[in-house]
Parts: sequence; C-alpha cells; structure tokens
Amino acid sequence: MFEIKKRDAAGRICTFQTTHGSVTTPALMPVVNPHQMLLSPRELRKTGAQMIITNSYIIHQDPRLREVAQKKGLHCLLDFDGPVMTDSGSFQSYLYGSKIDPVEIVKFQRDIGSDIGTIFDIISSPTASFTTCQAEITETVRRAQESSAVKGDMLLAGTIQGSIYPRLRQTCARKMGKLDIDFHPIGGVVPLMEMQRYSDIARIIIASKKGLPPSRPVHLFGAGHPLILPLAVALGCDFFDSSAYIKYAKDQRLLFSTGTKKLGEIEENPCSCSVCQRYSPQDLREMETEERTRNIALHNLYQTFAEMKRIREAIREGSLWELVERRSVTNPSLLDAMEVVQGETHWLEKSEPISKKRAFFYTGRYSLHRPLVYRYHQRLFQRYIPPAKKIRVVPEEKKPYSKYYQKYVTTNTTLLVSSPFGPVPIELDEMYPFSQSLFPQKLDSETQEMNKRLEQQFLAHLQTLMGNQKISAKKEKIDATNYQSRKIKKVADMQFGNGAGDALFEGEINILVSPRTGKIRGVYADNQLIASMRASDGLFILGKEGGFRLHKHLDFPDMRIIIDDEAIPFVQQGRNVFSKFVIDASELVRPLDEVLIVSTKDDLIGTGTCLLNREELLSFTTGMGVKTRQGYPPE
Amino acid sequence: MFEIKKRDAAGRICTFQTTHGSVTTPALMPVVNPHQMLLSPRELRKTGAQMIITNSYIIHQDPRLREVAQKKGLHCLLDFDGPVMTDSGSFQSYLYGSKIDPVEIVKFQRDIGSDIGTIFDIISSPTASFTTCQAEITETVRRAQESSAVKGDMLLAGTIQGSIYPRLRQTCARKMGKLDIDFHPIGGVVPLMEMQRYSDIARIIIASKKGLPPSRPVHLFGAGHPLILPLAVALGCDFFDSSAYIKYAKDQRLLFSTGTKKLGEIEENPCSCSVCQRYSPQDLREMETEERTRNIALHNLYQTFAEMKRIREAIREGSLWELVERRSVTNPSLLDAMEVVQGETHWLEKSEPISKKRAFFYTGRYSLHRPLVYRYHQRLFQRYIPPAKKIRVVPEEKKPYSKYYQKYVTTNTTLLVSSPFGPVPIELDEMYPFSQSLFPQKLDSETQEMNKRLEQQFLAHLQTLMGNQKISAKKEKIDATNYQSRKIKKVADMQFGNGAGDALFEGEINILVSPRTGKIRGVYADNQLIASMRASDGLFILGKEGGFRLHKHLDFPDMRIIIDDEAIPFVQQGRNVFSKFVIDASELVRPLDEVLIVSTKDDLIGTGTCLLNREELLSFTTGMGVKTRQGYPPE
Repeated sequence: MFEIKKRDAAGRICTFQTTHGSVTTPALMPVVNPHQMLLSPRELRKTGAQMIITNSYIIHQDPRLREVAQKKGLHCLLDFDGPVMTDSGSFQSYLYGSKIDPVEIVKFQRDIGSDIGTIFDIISSPTASFTTCQAEITETVRRAQESSAVKGDMLLAGTIQGSIYPRLRQTCARKMGKLDIDFHPIGGVVPLMEMQRYSDIARIIIASKKGLPPSRPVHLFGAGHPLILPLAVALGCDFFDSSAYIKYAKDQRLLFSTGTKKLGEIEENPCSCSVCQRYSPQDLREMETEERTRNIALHNLYQTFAEMKRIREAIREGSLWELVERRSVTNPSLLDAMEVVQGETHWLEKSEPISKKRAFFYTGRYSLHRPLVYRYHQRLFQRYIPPAKKIRVVPEEKKPYSKYYQKYVTTNTTLLVSSPFGPVPIELDEMYPFSQSLFPQKLDSETQEMNKRLEQQFLAHLQTLMGNQKISAKKEKIDATNYQSRKIKKVADMQFGNGAGDALFEGEINILVSPRTGKIRGVYADNQLIASMRASDGLFILGKEGGFRLHKHLDFPDMRIIIDDEAIPFVQQGRNVFSKFVIDASELVRPLDEVLIVSTKDDLIGTGTCLLNREELLSFTTGMGVKTRQGYPPE
Repeated sequence: MFEIKKRDAAGRICTFQTTHGSVTTPALMPVVNPHQMLLSPRELRKTGAQMIITNSYIIHQDPRLREVAQKKGLHCLLDFDGPVMTDSGSFQSYLYGSKIDPVEIVKFQRDIGSDIGTIFDIISSPTASFTTCQAEITETVRRAQESSAVKGDMLLAGTIQGSIYPRLRQTCARKMGKLDIDFHPIGGVVPLMEMQRYSDIARIIIASKKGLPPSRPVHLFGAGHPLILPLAVALGCDFFDSSAYIKYAKDQRLLFSTGTKKLGEIEENPCSCSVCQRYSPQDLREMETEERTRNIALHNLYQTFAEMKRIREAIREGSLWELVERRSVTNPSLLDAMEVVQGETHWLEKSEPISKKRAFFYTGRYSLHRPLVYRYHQRLFQRYIPPAKKIRVVPEEKKPYSKYYQKYVTTNTTLLVSSPFGPVPIELDEMYPFSQSLFPQKLDSETQEMNKRLEQQFLAHLQTLMGNQKISAKKEKIDATNYQSRKIKKVADMQFGNGAGDALFEGEINILVSPRTGKIRGVYADNQLIASMRASDGLFILGKEGGFRLHKHLDFPDMRIIIDDEAIPFVQQGRNVFSKFVIDASELVRPLDEVLIVSTKDDLIGTGTCLLNREELLSFTTGMGVKTRQGYPPE
C-alpha cells in the first residue's frame, strides 16, 4: 500500500494505494469545505490535486450534507472519484470546544466511505505545559486504539500530538506506531505555521519521524504554505494539506514558493500559471470579490503544486538539500530551522543515499553539514588507513586530484588534499562527491573553520594510528599501476569497511582503465572480475568473485541483507528482493549501497543494490528492498 | 530619451524612447537571425519582448535581405514595428575574421532604419594581453568617434571593450562617455559567460559603469542566461540580449532562473509557461526536431522574461539585493561574483536609496555588506554624537528598542543595542532598517565577527569623542518627553548631518506622538512644524520652518540641489525639478533624500525628495530630479 520509489535526504517519492486509486507522494491535498466549495473538486484536480481532504465533522453536523453522504457516499457528495481523506473535527474542538464522540466520528467517516479517516485527537496548544500535553497524548493514543478497532476497510489516520516537546512527539509517535494505524498526521502545527516557528516545526517532524516506523506515511497537517514544503519533505513528510490556498486568497494574498505577496503590492507578476497568464494584477484587483478570490485561490494552488513538482524532481536528481538550502535564504525563520536540521545530521545520515545523479553544489554554511559530508567525515576516521608513514598535505587546485598530484605520491607518502570537504586522501578523488562538486573560490568562514579543525584532528588521528614507529626511509616513485592498486583498496575500504580492499584485491591484480578518460573501469584478480567501478560516482559494483571475497571477509551481518528461505530460489535466479522477505539487515547498509544477500545461515545468495536502510527494510512490507545484481545459484 | 523611474541597488527602471516606441528597462532583446527566424518577431513580442536585436552584417552580406532592407527598411524586413537594435558584425569578425568597413556598416544600419546601430568595435579576447587590449580599445574608440559623425537620426551604440582588465574597461568607458553616443553595450562577455566567469563579468560591469556618465543606457552584450540577470541589473545594466534562448533550445536545454536543465533529464516540469502547460517533457522529447526547438526556445524566453519581471518588481519593492543574494546560492560562480560586489560597496552606496518599501531580509553572509548597511556604519561614526558619557550596551531582544530599553536610559547614559547591524544607538530604533528587518536567531560567523569588531571600534571611537573629561555623576531618570527630544535630534543628525538636530529643534519643542502606536509623528518648535516623521521608515520630512532652519545651519552646498534661475518661479509654486535645470548638487545627497532646493546664490527655493544622486543629476537631461515637497514663494 505504501512503497518507496525514489529518495533523497530523508525525503522520498512513494506510491500510496487507496481504493480510489494510487497517489504519488510527496502529495498535497487541497482542503475542501463541503459547505462552500469555491473551487469544485474537479477543478482542484486540474490544478494538480491527486487527492483532497475534507472535514467529516462539518458534514456530520449538517443534516442535508450528512444525508447525502450517508446515502450516496462521500465521493458522490463531493463529486470526486479520487482518494478523499477526512478530518474528524479535532481542530474545531480545539478552537471552539465542539463536543464530538471519538468513536462515533470514526465510524461515521468509515460509513460515508472516506479513504482515510482521522481519529478525534486532542490538539495541544503550543503554550500548554509538558504535563498537560502528556496527559493529552495519552488520551489521544487511547482514542486511536479504540478507533482502530472500528476502522473497517477505511485507512485510519492516527495523529501525532505533543505540542512543541520533541520527547512527547516521539513518545506519541512510538505508541501510535505500534497500533493498527495506516497513516500519521503530525498535528497541532497550524499555530506554529502562523507564527513562522519553522524551527519548532522541524524539531516536531524529526521527533515524530524518529518515533514512527519508516513505512508509515507521514502527513504534516495544516502546513500548506509552499515555503515550508521542501524542508518538510527533506525531513520525511509525505503528505500535506492546504487550506492556505483559500485562506490567503480571501485575504488577497498570493502564495509563491519564496513567500507571500499582497495583491495590492504587485505591479508586474512573474507567475505564468493559467490565472496569471490571463489576468494582470490590475485585472485581479478590479474583479468582483468572489471571482477574485476564486482566481487567487487557483493561482495559489498552481504555485503550491509547482513547488511539489520541483521537490519531487529534486528527489529524482538528488538535489533536495540544495533546494532546501536555496529556500532557506528566502526567510530568516527557515534559517532558524536549518540550525535544527544541522543538529540532526546523525539521524539524517541513515536515510541519505550513498551517491547522487547530480553534482554537489555548495550554497553556503549549511552545505557542509549535509548528511553525505557528515558520513564522509565519519568514514574517513573509521575506515581510511594511511598507505604510508609520511603525510603530505597539498592544497586543492584542480580536479580530479590524481591527475595533478599523483606525481607527489611515493611509496612512503600519504597524500591528502585540503579540499572544501575537509582533508581528502588522493586515492578517493573520483568517489562521489569529490570530483562531482562545485564550490566558490572563497568558502564561508564557518566551513573554513570546520575544515581547519577537521584537518588537524585527522592528522592527529593518523599519527595515533601509525603509533610511534620510525618513518621508513624508503622513498620511491610509484608508477601508475602501483598507484591504481593503492587507489582501489582505499576506495573499497571507504565503501565496504576497513580491510575490504585487501580482501577483495588479492592475487594477481589486473586493472582495466578507460583509455580515453584514464578512469578505472574494472578490477580483475586471477582473471576473475572482482568489481567494476561506476564512472558516475567512482564506487564499486561487485563482480561475482568480488561478492564471494567480500562475504568471506566481512563479519556477519556487515553489509548483508538476510532473506527468508522462501525467497532464496528467486534471488538465486537474479530476481529482486522484496522488503517483505527481508528478515534482517546490517546496520551499516545505506540507501544505494552495494550489498550481500544472504540466507539466515549466511549462505551467499546474491549481490545487489539496496534501496532501503535496515529500519526501512524491516518496516516496509510492500515494494522492493534490494535490486539484485546477480544471484549465486546453489553449488 | 532615457529617464529613471524607480531604483534599487545600482539598478533602475527607466523609460527609453525610440522612434518606434518606448521601452521599459531593464529589458531583454531576443536575438533574431534574419536568415532563419525560428520564432517570428511577432511571436517574440507575445513572449514579452518589447524590442529585438538583429545582425546588420548578416543582412548586408545577403543580397536578397540587403535589398529588402534598403528598399523597405529593417522593420519591414523583420515584420516588427517595435524598436530594433542592430549589431555590426564585430562578433563575426572576432570569430571568423570577417572584414568589415567600420563606417560603412554604421551608415548601412542608419540607412535601413535601425533604431540603435552599433559601431564596428574590436572584441578583445579574454586571454589577450593588457597592451594588446589597450591598442584595441584605442582603435574601437576611434571608430566610435568616426561612427558618431555619420549616425544621423539613428541612436548609436558604442561598445565598451577592454577584456578582463577593469582599468581598460573604465578608460574605454570614460572615452566613449565623452563622445556623441547614445547607448553602451559592454562587449566581449560571451566567452566569459560560457566559462561562467561571473566574477570577471561583475568586475567588468562595475568598471564600465564607473567610467560612463550615469545617464547612458548600458547593455550587457551577449549575456542572456537568466542566472546572471539579477546581479547585472543590480550593478546598473539596463539592456540585455538573448541568443541563449535559441542556442540552448537547439541543444535541448531548458533555461530556468536557477540554471539550465537538459530535456532528457526532466521528468516533472514545474514550469507553467504556455509551452510547459501544454506539453510534458515527454511530449517535447517525442516532437520533431524543429517543433521541439521552437517550443523549447519559447519556454526559454518565457522563463527569461519572467526573471526580468521579477527583477523589475524587486526594484519597485526595494528587494533587489535579496533577489541577487537568493540567486547567488544557485551557482558557486555567482558566489564568486558576490565577493567582487562586496569589495565595491563604497561605489554602490552612492546609488542606494535611503530607505525601502520592504523590510530588510537577511539571507546570509553577504546581507550585511549591502550598501545600506555600509552607509549606516559610515554615518554612525561620522554623525552620531553620544548624548551622555556613560555608555551602556544591551543585547537586542525585542523591537522597537525604545519600547523595551527606554527604562535604562538616564541623563548620563548613551544606550547602544548590540544588533545584527552592529551597534545601534537606541534613539535610531525606528529608522529604516532597524525596526524593519528580519534576521535568524544565529547569524553566520563572518557577520558575527564583523559586528563584534565594529562594536569595539565604535566604543573606542566614542571614548575618543568624549575626550578625557570626567563622567558626570548626575544620573537621573529621563521621562518620555526628554527621551523623545533626544531621539529626534539623533535621527536628524544621522539623516542630515552632525548638528542638524540641534539646529532644527531649537526653541519650545512640541512632539506630536501617535496615541495608538506611540510613534513620533511630527515636531513643532514655537508652534511651527519643523518636520514630520514618516511612519514607514522613521525618517524626517521637512516642514517649512524646518527647511529654513536646515538651510541656515548647513554649509553650502550640503544637502542642496542648485537649480537654474529659469526654474525658480516654477519650483516656488511647488512644481518638480527636472534634472536639466539642476546646475549642481551636494555630494552628500543620496536617492530619496530630503533636500533643500536653492538658487545659485543659495536662496532657498523649496524642499523636496531627491530621486537622483549628484552625478546623475548632472548627467541626466530628461526626467525628474527632485519631487518638490513645497516651494518657498519669494518674500
């Protein structure tokens, strides 16, 4: 029912199945007021809406609407044949104290045929105390449990509450995650959106995501302004709703991906949506109120859906962090949120793919805090073993490093390049992102400081690694072949773990190099293909013998995906591994890593590209887990 | 013929008159190849083109085209009734060494009815030596002089050359500026655009602008990628041309304000231009080559013109620097250019308006280098006299400062707020941009460092100012009225110069305060209105008596605009001052400053808001110079 197709940062493009069709996420549901449909659901669909959301409480309270909904169903009432989510009236209760029976309203949603019905949760105020919120989430979780018993065929949305307290959000999420619930709104966000407290929102999303199983769709409830969307998606939100498109339109305000503008203040409008192509700001100002509101609402939706497309496209090309950083400079409150994100790199690193289609673009002081860079720094200390005792540091001048600095490498030199990513051993120069990156001449001083510190720490670390042994006096030029042998081992260590290089590339090594680019294409040992190197990101893909050697070298369960016996014959034939057949996996595996597929007895069944990390493999029951590269037929 | 209407940064919205109609700048001219019009000039107009550019050399070389052009005129040949600029073939000469007679080609352009004809200049290569370029610009200037003698009624474009050498560019511009020339392309930019050497381009624009009279329109020749447009406009470019829309289209690349994308790599397209609304990337890929190229070319133009609109709108709202900074994070080469801009703040400050409609938004490390902030720092040291001997520095917590910190002000305290703008004396709290600004919680470390340094310097400066006198022991609470009296003087000093406050607010002072907001509205002395304070930016507008007092206080020619005797009776009646009647002006005057309008004998004729700085007032011969607020009828 929910399946990851593409991913970047902690964001993901998924397909989400409902009885009224499939939705591609991240998706935004326009809010429909059943009393007053300024734009009909059919019109909404034309703007890009795959799915809509309405309020079951409003329908329930209006005898006329209730009757139609009960007799002919919700979809007929709204004249919409796509998926419809319903809210329960929690927000009405929060604002006006409306009394609602938590179980009855869920049954009502089920009975009128809602695709996703929402529990009647308690929205904690952003000013409520910790203990009040704690009590409120206990009650919300209780209601969720009650509701799940009556949900029937309807998908149930269990809202995460906990106000601005990350601990409570995480607890609430953990409890909700254990219940039979299909979908998780993050609630209580509206007042924070209104105050532009984006850093609180970031904290809340992260805490909720940490508590929930990764296979549950997450909906940031009440955050429809395009400004917050890239960040929220990058932190793992899949669904959004927008009442903003109408609310702002009524107030004569136009939404843009970079903020809001009052109609009265616009002279020339750069927007080229259907509305703005037809009407100038002056035309809009001269319209009758309702017509104007309708048109601004349409514009607002076009802009919002354009941003959703931009986000999905950024996920596909691996540039979501850049989009987030670019958006962050449009509003200082988003910069505040970036500080929160920066503190969560350790968590974010788990979902970050190991390489991207697009080059790494530096945008400013947050770029070097991207999870990919954090991972590199971690691995540099954990996995890189200096090949020789004399350490030489050279400035970064040209790329790839090997081409310019290889002449300085001798048998007793470890050569580091002082790069914008911190120190980079020369052998890693073709690995993503070192060659595939763009930086300005002058970095911001925070990054400069960080790199300086990192270099000092790394040099100290290397000294410790090498102990107090005397530096060998043997200093010989090393030729291209020697250098390449060194290089493949260092890359393999970084990719698969310390020692993998020696284990993989043992015996009589033959390195196939592209005559045109000079890049390594493949490595053979004793005439068998051990691994080929991908030109795009300089990472290894295991050959058959490479799989055997890595499997032999790495301790169980490192870099392994352990599959159910049932799936073994299929994988042996080269079929992909679906998540539901994954029994366990190595903690070390990251999205797009090359992995070993093994049985519970640790027999090697295949190798492949893993699409999910361990938590996800264990959580998802639909979709592919590992794209098998080759199966190892039984001997 | 060329007149400033709105301005921000060194950018400006102007109207430019030609015999084929008026153009609003900044404007972009699509390049039309007379041999192969993939898009007809009429179609180009629909995309937003007010004006087009074509190549007279190509027309001249083709007997058929030449005949039509000579018999029926250029506009008929192109079937376009708007303004048309022609190029001379310099680029063809640069690339292929075509031989062209410099005077003949100008006569040809004149004869076929070009609105703007271009001299046949020599394009220096970006790798040419200084001396080669020097010789080449000498020849270019000589040709410009020759050409101007034969231009007839045609406007003549005199191209600034000088390769990557700012000194040569400035020299060339200065020489060109003295000739009878109407329009100035900055040439030789194409190879730099191709290498994304945006920092060189920034240097070249700045040097050329420094050399040229400000009333000459400037055309960045060959820079049609939307990525460079905001920066180029902010540095003072008025015209652009684009052959990029076709060139990129032929290569199946789509232009966006944030960069370029290959059609093959786009899955979902967020663009909503007429083309992208109709065709998906898949549709475009499946088209016949010519149809596809046509459509991508149209898309490219829509995107480019949308960026032009965005730029003009940013000028109107005073947010051009923010747009420039936001764009700079999309490409590291633009960040390199920002370093160049940062080094030119002193020059940029002269064109920067004194306040803006929109709040100051911080985006990052370049924000505090905006000319407005630089000006504040200058004036703080030059114009602020501490009201008391004891200096107290408080952190910035809430705004406006007076509301929160006034209680700390005593007769012997000078209170400074440690703000993101550096130290701000409490009395200036309502002046733009202090109250009208948005910052994140945590500033980048460069700005933090700068502010720390600035605070230390300012404290030292205050100590020096106050000499070694003993601190007065008198410490009394000061009440709201005393505080307001202090405040108005400090604001007037910052606005008009040191001592202006004492001179303006002498006698029995009455301060009118808004009962609702507590903000100062106006100041009366001896029952006469001295000045009112604008709520939007906290700056003074002079009342009649205020004009007299300021005039009496300030030395000639400070804050004065000296007008021709001929204009005196009109200004006395309250009519505006046109630039052509300005004889001289104070060096101190900045755009939007409140100024004194005087005769050559320094009689006070009026007060008003000056739209131009001194250099501009002396250079422009059309358009308004000062919007007169009130005339002082003869006694």
